Amino acid sequence: MDHPQLHKCSDATVTPVRTTIHFSIADKVGALDECLAAIKSMNISLTRIESRPSKTSEWDYDFFVDFDAANVEQVSQVSSSLERLSKHVHIVGTGGASGVAATSELPDSSPWFPRKLVDLDTFADKVLEMGEELDADHPGAKDAVYRRRRAEITQIAKTYKTGQPIPHIQYTQTEIDTWTTVFNKLTTMFPSYACREHQYVFPLLIQNCGYGPSAIPQLDGVSKFLKDCTGFTLRPVMGLLTSRDFLNGLAFRVFHSTQYIRHHSKPLYTPEPDVCHELLGHVPLFADPAFADFSQEIGLASLGASDADIERLATIYWFTVEFGLCRQGDQLRAYGAGLLSSFGELEYCLSDTPEVRPFEPAKVALQKYPITHYQPVYFVAESFKDAQMRVREFVNSMDRPFSVRYNAYTESIEILDSKEKVIRYAQSIKADMLTLVDALDKLA
Amino acid sequence: MDHPQLHKCSDATVTPVRTTIHFSIADKVGALDECLAAIKSMNISLTRIESRPSKTSEWDYDFFVDFDAANVEQVSQVSSSLERLSKHVHIVGTGGASGVAATSELPDSSPWFPRKLVDLDTFADKVLEMGEELDADHPGAKDAVYRRRRAEITQIAKTYKTGQPIPHIQYTQTEIDTWTTVFNKLTTMFPSYACREHQYVFPLLIQNCGYGPSAIPQLDGVSKFLKDCTGFTLRPVMGLLTSRDFLNGLAFRVFHSTQYIRHHSKPLYTPEPDVCHELLGHVPLFADPAFADFSQEIGLASLGASDADIERLATIYWFTVEFGLCRQGDQLRAYGAGLLSSFGELEYCLSDTPEVRPFEPAKVALQKYPITHYQPVYFVAESFKDAQMRVREFVNSMDRPFSVRYNAYTESIEILDSKEKVIRYAQSIKADMLTLVDALDKLA
Amino acid sequence: MDHPQLHKCSDATVTPVRTTIHFSIADKVGALDECLAAIKSMNISLTRIESRPSKTSEWDYDFFVDFDAANVEQVSQVSSSLERLSKHVHIVGTGGASGVAATSELPDSSPWFPRKLVDLDTFADKVLEMGEELDADHPGAKDAVYRRRRAEITQIAKTYKTGQPIPHIQYTQTEIDTWTTVFNKLTTMFPSYACREHQYVFPLLIQNCGYGPSAIPQLDGVSKFLKDCTGFTLRPVMGLLTSRDFLNGLAFRVFHSTQYIRHHSKPLYTPEPDVCHELLGHVPLFADPAFADFSQEIGLASLGASDADIERLATIYWFTVEFGLCRQGDQLRAYGAGLLSSFGELEYCLSDTPEVRPFEPAKVALQKYPITHYQPVYFVAESFKDAQMRVREFVNSMDRPFSVRYNAYTESIEILDSKEKVIRYAQSIKADMLTLVDALDKLA
Amino acid sequence: MDHPQLHKCSDATVTPVRTTIHFSIADKVGALDECLAAIKSMNISLTRIESRPSKTSEWDYDFFVDFDAANVEQVSQVSSSLERLSKHVHIVGTGGASGVAATSELPDSSPWFPRKLVDLDTFADKVLEMGEELDADHPGAKDAVYRRRRAEITQIAKTYKTGQPIPHIQYTQTEIDTWTTVFNKLTTMFPSYACREHQYVFPLLIQNCGYGPSAIPQLDGVSKFLKDCTGFTLRPVMGLLTSRDFLNGLAFRVFHSTQYIRHHSKPLYTPEPDVCHELLGHVPLFADPAFADFSQEIGLASLGASDADIERLATIYWFTVEFGLCRQGDQLRAYGAGLLSSFGELEYCLSDTPEVRPFEPAKVALQKYPITHYQPVYFVAESFKDAQMRVREFVNSMDRPFSVRYNAYTESIEILDSKEKVIRYAQSIKADMLTLVDALDKLA
Repeated sequence: MDHPQLHKCSDATVTPVRTTIHFSIADKVGALDECLAAIKSMNISLTRIESRPSKTSEWDYDFFVDFDAANVEQVSQVSSSLERLSKHVHIVGTGGASGVAATSELPDSSPWFPRKLVDLDTFADKVLEMGEELDADHPGAKDAVYRRRRAEITQIAKTYKTGQPIPHIQYTQTEIDTWTTVFNKLTTMFPSYACREHQYVFPLLIQNCGYGPSAIPQLDGVSKFLKDCTGFTLRPVMGLLTSRDFLNGLAFRVFHSTQYIRHHSKPLYTPEPDVCHELLGHVPLFADPAFADFSQEIGLASLGASDADIERLATIYWFTVEFGLCRQGDQLRAYGAGLLSSFGELEYCLSDTPEVRPFEPAKVALQKYPITHYQPVYFVAESFKDAQMRVREFVNSMDRPFSVRYNAYTESIEILDSKEKVIRYAQSIKADMLTLVDALDKLA
Repeated sequence: MDHPQLHKCSDATVTPVRTTIHFSIADKVGALDECLAAIKSMNISLTRIESRPSKTSEWDYDFFVDFDAANVEQVSQVSSSLERLSKHVHIVGTGGASGVAATSELPDSSPWFPRKLVDLDTFADKVLEMGEELDADHPGAKDAVYRRRRAEITQIAKTYKTGQPIPHIQYTQTEIDTWTTVFNKLTTMFPSYACREHQYVFPLLIQNCGYGPSAIPQLDGVSKFLKDCTGFTLRPVMGLLTSRDFLNGLAFRVFHSTQYIRHHSKPLYTPEPDVCHELLGHVPLFADPAFADFSQEIGLASLGASDADIERLATIYWFTVEFGLCRQGDQLRAYGAGLLSSFGELEYCLSDTPEVRPFEPAKVALQKYPITHYQPVYFVAESFKDAQMRVREFVNSMDRPFSVRYNAYTESIEILDSKEKVIRYAQSIKADMLTLVDALDKLA
Repeated sequence: MDHPQLHKCSDATVTPVRTTIHFSIADKVGALDECLAAIKSMNISLTRIESRPSKTSEWDYDFFVDFDAANVEQVSQVSSSLERLSKHVHIVGTGGASGVAATSELPDSSPWFPRKLVDLDTFADKVLEMGEELDADHPGAKDAVYRRRRAEITQIAKTYKTGQPIPHIQYTQTEIDTWTTVFNKLTTMFPSYACREHQYVFPLLIQNCGYGPSAIPQLDGVSKFLKDCTGFTLRPVMGLLTSRDFLNGLAFRVFHSTQYIRHHSKPLYTPEPDVCHELLGHVPLFADPAFADFSQEIGLASLGASDADIERLATIYWFTVEFGLCRQGDQLRAYGAGLLSSFGELEYCLSDTPEVRPFEPAKVALQKYPITHYQPVYFVAESFKDAQMRVREFVNSMDRPFSVRYNAYTESIEILDSKEKVIRYAQSIKADMLTLVDALDKLA
Repeated sequence: MDHPQLHKCSDATVTPVRTTIHFSIADKVGALDECLAAIKSMNISLTRIESRPSKTSEWDYDFFVDFDAANVEQVSQVSSSLERLSKHVHIVGTGGASGVAATSELPDSSPWFPRKLVDLDTFADKVLEMGEELDADHPGAKDAVYRRRRAEITQIAKTYKTGQPIPHIQYTQTEIDTWTTVFNKLTTMFPSYACREHQYVFPLLIQNCGYGPSAIPQLDGVSKFLKDCTGFTLRPVMGLLTSRDFLNGLAFRVFHSTQYIRHHSKPLYTPEPDVCHELLGHVPLFADPAFADFSQEIGLASLGASDADIERLATIYWFTVEFGLCRQGDQLRAYGAGLLSSFGELEYCLSDTPEVRPFEPAKVALQKYPITHYQPVYFVAESFKDAQMRVREFVNSMDRPFSVRYNAYTESIEILDSKEKVIRYAQSIKADMLTLVDALDKLA
C-alpha cells in the first residue's frame, strides 16, 4: 500500500527560534536609513531584511526582518527595541527549523507561515523522515546502491530554489522498469475506478508531458503543464514535510513532490510517496480548476493556524486529496492520490467492504485513520466545488483571527487585517465586476 | 532629450505568416491522438502544438497550433482541414516576424497577440531599430567600441527566455561614470519635480536594489523587487519594439527594458531609451499599485486591437507613462519616465511654457506629438485610479469584439468570449466576495 | 395543538384555465396599437392587458395578457395567433382558480406564478378550507355566532387589495379574553424556550405595535413595523391557501395572515392558524433580517416550481418556519411558529422525547410528518444564514430551468432568462460594489 | 417658457427647530421601557418615537425620537440627557419647517433628511411659493376662479399621505382644453426633438395611462405605471419645494408632481411647473431604468448635504433633468422636461443659437443660469449611464462624511457608517453574486 504525504506535527523543541518581525514606519527624509541602522545595531543574526511599499497605509514603509533568535526572550527584546521606531510592531511568527511554534509565550503572535513564494525555500531541509535514512521495513533499507541513488536525487530538492527549472533526472533502466510495471498496472484500472477528471486529463499528460510506459516523466515539464492549466506547480522535496509546511505550500498552489522512485524489489508497494504516487495519483487532479481551488482552500486555511487546526486540516487533506471518493452519476469513483496510485486499495475502496460517508468537514476533521493499512472509512464528495464550499464553511468556524488571500501577481499572501487592505481588495472586486459586465455585454 | 519607447506600427510586408490556430475537440477514446496525427500529416512547419483542458466546454480539449505558413492561402487551407476535426476552429491571429498582421484577408480572425507569458519570448528579435545598428546622429554611432559593447549586451535580450534570471552585466567604469553623472543630476531634481509616488519608492530602491551613484543597478534585482510590489517584471529587450508588441507586454505586467547605457560623450542626452531612462524614470512608478493597474489596462486594451487602435493606445501611453503630469494638492508634478529621466525636459514641463490640459483619453489619443524635441502639450491626470477608469471607458468605446482578462495564476490571457468562461469568472468574483465578507467580519 | 399553515397541493380540476401570455414586439410607429387591436379581436375573456418597456431587449415592448381560457386548446390557439405578431411568445403559466396547473399539456410553459405584488390579489378567494366552513371537529363548528363572526372578519381578506391599509378589527371582549389567556401563558414560557431573535424582538412589538395581554394587536400596525424592519408585510387571508400560493407570497416578502381568533371554549388549542399563532409565533421572526432572507429564499424557489418541488419546499417550510429548532450556544431553542404558539408542543419539543436531527434540506424535504399531533422529529438549524445557504444549494439542485430575483423597487419578479436581464443585474451589482467601496473608504 | 422645479435654498430662520435624535441601547430586561419613560419625562414636544431592531449592533435597539425643540439649546439639553441612557447619541439632523438647517451650532450633526419614505409626508406644507398665492405676473394672478380651483387641487397634496392612492381630479372642460392645446402642439414636435427614450415610452403612456388629447391623465395611474417600470412614484405637491426637499425625494425614487394646470389664457406658457410639464416632460423619462438610476443618484447625494452642495446638486439637476440634451447617434436630442414641455425652447435648444458643452458635473455645478428666459448654455450627456457615473464621481468629491444606500425593501435610507452595516451590505452583494452565477449557469 502506498503511504502518502504524512501529516504529523513534530513535537521536538528546537533552537534557534526562527522569527519574522513585521513593522511599519512613516515616510520622511532618511526614515529608511535610520531604521536599517537601528536594526543592524541589534546583535541578531539576520536572515532577511526587506523594506517594501506599505500594503496598509499609503505612505508608510513596511519592514520585514527575519532572524534566528537564541531564545524567546531575545525575540521579546528585539520586538521591544523596534517599538521605539514604530508604533506597529507585529511578530508574524516564530518557529524552529522543524516547524516548532514557540509563539504561545508571546502576545499577539501566531505560528510562522510563508508570506511569499520564495519563503518556501526555507522548507527544503526540514524533512521529517525518509529524506536520506530509510526505515528498517523499507524495501530498500538494506540496498546501499538504492540509498545512494536516493541521496543523489534528493540533493536536487535540498538545493532547489523558487523559480529555477526542476533539474531533469536521468533515470536508470531499473528505475524505468519499476515505473513501467506500475504504469501498466494502474492504467488498466483507471477507466473503471478513476474519477472523470482524472481520466480526462490523463491523455493530455501522455500527449504533452511524456507520460507513457517507457519513460518516467520529468517533473519540470509536468509542472509547466499544470501551471498552464491551473497555476499549480511542483516543487521537488527530499521526503516528508511536516503537515504545516506541506499544507502551507498548497496556499501558493505549490505541491511538494518527490522525484525518486520506490525500490525495484516491490514495484507495486511503497511505504511513502514516490514519483509514481505523485505523477499517477496527484498530478492529473491538479490540472482540474475546481480541484485546484479546493486544494488551495485547505492550504490558505493552514497559514498561521493553531497546531490543533493543522491536525484537523491534515486529516481533511488525508480523506480528500489522498483518499477521497466522489460521486459521479450514480457511481462512486476515486480521486484521492493514495488510492489512484495503489493497485490494491483502488480496488478495495470501491468494493463493498469499507464504509462510505458523506463529506462533512467538521466530522471528517475528527476521524481517526490508520497509516499502515487500507482505510476502513472513506468520505464521498458530491463535487469539488461543493467540497470547497464546505471546507470554506469549516474554515470560517476555526479560530484564526484573520483572513488571508493569495495575490497571484506578487506571489504573496495578503493578511486582510486592516481597513486599507480590505478596501484595496474590494476595489479589485469592483474592477473585476466592471470587466465582467463588459464581457457579458460583448457575449454574442 | 530622451527618446522613449517608440510606438510605430511597421508597415513592411513579411513572409512567412505566423499563425496561431485554436480549436476544440470533444473527449472520447483516442481523440487526442487522432487529432495530433491529422495535424502532423499536414505539410506545415509547426512551431508549437499544445493540447490543454478546455477553458470553454467542460470535457472538450483545446488545441493550440502555431505554424509558419507560406502565405495566407495556406492558412485558409489548414483552417479548412481542421474544420473536419472540429466544429470550432478559430484563427487566433496571423502575423509576420515583425508583427505584420495579415488578418484582414481572413474572416473571423484578429491580429495575433500573446496568450501566455512565454509567448513574449517571440518578441526577442523583432526589434524595430537601434538594436545593433545606430542612427547616424546617435552620439555613439561612430564609436566602434561602444557599438560592440551594445551588441554584447543586447545579445542577452536576444536569447533571454521567460522565467530565467536576467543576467548581470559587469558594467565598465566608463559606463558607471555616465550613470553617476545622470544619477547625481536627476536625484537633486526629484524632490521638486517628481510625483509623490516616485519620491516614496526611490529610497526603497536605494535600500533594496542597489540604487546609488556608484553602481548601475542590475535589472534582475529590480525586477524581483517590482514583482513583490505589484507583480510587474522587467524583461531585457534589444531595442525598440513595435508599439503593438511593447503594449502587449504590459498586459502581462511585463516591461521591456534596455540594459545598455547611453554614450559617455553626452551623459545627459540620449535619443532612445537606455538603462538610465528605465531605472530612474520607469521603475519607481511600476512599484505603485495604482500605476501598475493603469499600465496593465493599456496593455490589455492592446491585445488583438486594430492597427488604428494600437496607434491611439500608443499615443495615450506616450502622454502618460512617458510624458504624463499629475496633480498633487495644488501643484503639478511629473510621473512620465521621459520627463523623469531628462534633466532638461523635467524642468521645462513644469515651467509656464508648455500647455497643460486635463487627461481625457479620447482627446489624448488623437494628439499629435514630436519625438525629437520637448512636448508642446502635456496632459494632467487627477490620480492613477482616475486615469485608469478613464482609459477603461475609452477602451470600451473601441471596436474590439471581445473582452479579456489576465489570469495571474496561469500567467495567461483569457478571452471572455463564451458563456462558460464568463461563468467561471463570475464564480471567481463570487469566491472573492465570500473572502471579502469574511475579512470584514474579522476586522477588529 | 396548533395547526399551522397547511401545504397541500389541490388536485381538483377546474375550468376556466387562467393563463398569462407574455410576448414582445419591436418598437415602430403604431406597433402598440396594432398589437392591441389584434388581441382584442380574439374572442377571449381578458382580465389584464399591459404593455410595458421591455426588460429584455432595449427597444422592444413587453405585453402581458391575462385571460380565462375555456380550455387548454384555446390557450394554444391564442398562443399561435400571437406568434404572427411576435417571435417571442411565452406562456408564463396556466392555472385554474384554485391553483391547478394545466401546463403539462403545453410546451414551453411552467406553472403560473405571480410576477407582481398586485398579482397576489388573485389569491384572495382561493382558500382550501376553513375559510367559512369549519371541520366537524373544530371547537367552533357548532357555534353559529362564532362562524358568523369569522365570516365577517374573513370578508376583509376576501376584498383586500394590495396597497390598502389592513382594516382594523374591533375585537369583542370574548375574543380579547381568549387572547389574554394565550398571551399570558406563552409569554411566561418564551424566556426559557424561544430563540434569541424572538425574545429580542418581542419587547419592540410591545412598545411599538400594541402587544400586551389586554388587546389584540391590529395587523396593520404590525405589518408597518415589519416593513420597517425587513420589508416583510402581512396580508389578510381567509384561511388556508394552497402551498403553492402561500409559498409564492413569501417570494414577495408577503406573509398571509389570518385575522380571526380561535374559539373561546379552548383558548390553548386550535386546529388551524389564527391571529394568536400569527402574532405570537410568526411575526417576531419576520422582523429578523436573516430569517426574512431565509423565508424569501423558500418563496423564490417556489415560483413556477413543479408540483413535486412545491411539496418538497412545503415540507422544508413545515420543518423550519413552523416547527424549526435552532442551536444557540450549547442549547436548543424554538423558532418555528407552530411551536412558539403552542403551549404544549413548545415544552415537548425541547424535552428528551422527540428526535432532533441537523437541518439538511435534501433530507428534510423527504421527511413525512403528522399534522394532527406533536412532531416526532425536529430539525436543528445552526443559524438562519446557514439555513438560507443550505436551502439555496438545495434549490439549485431543483429542476426549474430559470433563475429569478425579486426587484424590490418595482415589486416584481424578474426572470433572469436572457442575456440582457443578466447584464442589467450584473450592472446593479457593479453599482453596489461602487457604493460598498465608497462606504468602506468613509468608515472611520 | 416653462419654469421648472425651482432650486432655492431658503434663508429664513424658523422656530421651532425640528430635530431627529437617534440613539441605541443594549438589550436587557426592561431596557426599552426604561428608555421610553426617560424620554417621556423630558418636557419636549414629541412628533415620533420609534424603537426598532438595531441595524448596527446585533442585539442593540435603535431609538428614533423626533421633536420640535424651542431652540438649539434645548436640542443640546435633550441630547445630553440621552447620553445618560446611551453611549451612542446621534443628532441625525435639525431643521426648521422650511428646511432651515440649524446644525452648524451643534457638533456631530448634519442637516436633517428623511430616513423613511413616510418622512416625506413632512414636506407637504413646506412650499416655497405659488402654493396658493400667485406672483403678480402669473397669467392667473387676477383670476379668482382659477385661484380658487388651484387651492382646491393643492388641498389634496396638503393632506396626502404616503401609501394612499392619489385622488383623481375631475378636470373641467376649460382645463382639458388647455391640455389639448399643449398636447397637440408638443406631440407633433417630439418625433424630431425628443430623445429616443421619450419617444419609446410615450406610446406606452397612451395605451396604459390614458394619455391623449382629450383627457388629462390621472397621476395615480401614471404613478403605478412608473412603479412597474422603475420603482419611481409620483407624489402630489402644492407647489415649489426647497431644492433640498425636492432632491431628497428623488433619493426614494419619489417625484413631487403638481396636479393643477396652467391658466387657460396662455396655454403654451407657464412660469412654474404644472401638470402638463410633469406629464409630458418628466414622466416618460422616469420610465427609463438608466434615467431613474441617474435621478436617484442625485437624490441620494443630496441627503444630509451641506447647503453649498445642495446648490451644486440643484444646478446639476437643472441642467439635466430639466434642461438636458443628449447625443444620439450623430444628433442632439432633448431629454430635459423643461425643454420637452416648452414649445419654444424645444425648438430653440436644438438650433444653432445656444452654446452646447459636454456634461462634466464639476463644471455644470458652478454654471449660472437664468430662470426667466431660454438657457444660453446646454450640457450634453453621452448616455444616462455615463451621466450617472460622472455624477457619482462628483458626489465622491463632495465633503459628506458618510455613504448612504436606499433599501427598497424597507423603503428607508441606510447610513453605511458602521462596520456592521457595511458587512450586511457586503453580504447582500454576495447573495446577489450567488444568484447571478446561478442565472448565468441557467442561461440557454
